[in-house]
Amino acid sequence: MGERRTSWEELQEPAPEVESSPVVGVFDSGFGGLTVLKALVRQMPGAQFAFLGDTARLPYGSKSRRTIARYAAESAQFLVNQQGAEFLVIACNTASALALDAIQEAVDVPVLGVIEPGAAAAAASSSTRDVLVIATEATVASHAYAAACRAQGLRAVEKACPLLVPLVEEGWIEHPVTAEVVGIYLSEVLEEARAAEQSPDTLVLGCTHYPLLRKVFEMTVPDGMRIIDSAEATAEEAARLVSAQVSEARSGAPGFSQAPSIRCFATDSVEKFERLGSRFLGLPVGKVELVDLGG
Amino acid sequence: MGERRTSWEELQEPAPEVESSPVVGVFDSGFGGLTVLKALVRQMPGAQFAFLGDTARLPYGSKSRRTIARYAAESAQFLVNQQGAEFLVIACNTASALALDAIQEAVDVPVLGVIEPGAAAAAASSSTRDVLVIATEATVASHAYAAACRAQGLRAVEKACPLLVPLVEEGWIEHPVTAEVVGIYLSEVLEEARAAEQSPDTLVLGCTHYPLLRKVFEMTVPDGMRIIDSAEATAEEAARLVSAQVSEARSGAPGFSQAPSIRCFATDSVEKFERLGSRFLGLPVGKVELVDLGG
Repeated sequence: MGERRTSWEELQEPAPEVESSPVVGVFDSGFGGLTVLKALVRQMPGAQFAFLGDTARLPYGSKSRRTIARYAAESAQFLVNQQGAEFLVIACNTASALALDAIQEAVDVPVLGVIEPGAAAAAASSSTRDVLVIATEATVASHAYAAACRAQGLRAVEKACPLLVPLVEEGWIEHPVTAEVVGIYLSEVLEEARAAEQSPDTLVLGCTHYPLLRKVFEMTVPDGMRIIDSAEATAEEAARLVSAQVSEARSGAPGFSQAPSIRCFATDSVEKFERLGSRFLGLPVGKVELVDLGG
Repeated sequence: MGERRTSWEELQEPAPEVESSPVVGVFDSGFGGLTVLKALVRQMPGAQFAFLGDTARLPYGSKSRRTIARYAAESAQFLVNQQGAEFLVIACNTASALALDAIQEAVDVPVLGVIEPGAAAAAASSSTRDVLVIATEATVASHAYAAACRAQGLRAVEKACPLLVPLVEEGWIEHPVTAEVVGIYLSEVLEEARAAEQSPDTLVLGCTHYPLLRKVFEMTVPDGMRIIDSAEATAEEAARLVSAQVSEARSGAPGFSQAPSIRCFATDSVEKFERLGSRFLGLPVGKVELVDLGG
């Protein structure tokens, strides 16, 4: 957690200047997006966070654009209209890839996805201008990363890795089977890059579950390949945008209060969220509130 | 397929005496239930089948009872009220385990799940009266199989195997990683049975995806252990019940027409259903129709 460690007790206390702290809505199909929330708390320790996991309808990664857009728009409206979010972070690669437009149409606050910041971080990392992107089926099928990378002057080879989310959720984080599966997926995408005469030097983790497998990736990638986690890049960009928004809207206001507050909501499986969520947030997630979005 | 092989061309033709053939509704959260439909077609080659996969909201196996019951009831109502099903087969272990009551309340036709026939088949197979049941998280958490086995005079040790569905859907049917994962799960459940001083001689495949891994199970189970696929047992029981119902309702009517007809519906991912469904049905699934259940 770097220099400043936020204890769970601090997070549970009401923020002292809560009225002037911005409410940042963070949305994911499940709880993988808690890796992004963790980075956001580090970047904006005084903000109020409302996190929604649409766990009744997860995973989005294997579903169609039309369905994902509907689910994501409903979830965004809950955070803005019912939780007062003044800024939305889409902490889900699949929803960012397929539904950012639908979300921006559904709500009237600034919305930031994880794809653009991830591609920008890849551009800052890559010397060869060739990168690999691993993600869910739906994210890869959308080619949103390839487009965002192209806009940064990069060539990207994308690869769907549908077994990695279930392996993380099974808790096989440093398991030999996981290492074997990662090895298979990486050798396939490297082979594809070779066939396309590309020389990738950077691997983008295009799914919020994948940072939990960082050690396995580090052991498996070729020497010298850098690993980009878009959570960090997204959190930095979000902090910049939120600060600008706050100082514009409330000139003279203190901006952030001293301690963050986090409220977590889920559309299902509150117990599972509470049990698994701490793996992703790096802190206990506390009491998760059940929400019915009617789906 | 036994003596009578039904070709795909036959299935596509309209059934000759379609008015008098019963409409059997078959429901699953995804397309795994097509393994049950395959067995049903063998048992009732002259029936009309309407199959619904609730693919927009799958998987059910990781969700709560409340959510599963709502999804399953809506799906059952679609098959009965909009497709005219006169009999429902719940071709999904999770929905059978957690939502059979909710479905029976939601519709006014006979409803058959896969759990009771599976437990009855296990009872017919086991000499030691100890069995193993592998299934999804939600099915295991419900202990529906343990209860159904107990009613048959059996003791059951249940084990959740959440990686097997993703492995089947990735197409890693006879893959070394799948064999390794199956080996780990089986050794864990066998260890648990030993700790409980049980001597299981029968393994129940408590998820409609698992029959596709039958070869891997056969290579992995201890010598002499029998493998029960509840699809077959359920189809036999369904044929018996449907025949009784048809002859009661339509005395003198011919019962079944000559060739089955199959219509498939899905709430999402029609392309994925069409692509993967044939693996489960053992026949091309043809054109899948998209349904919006509003979820």
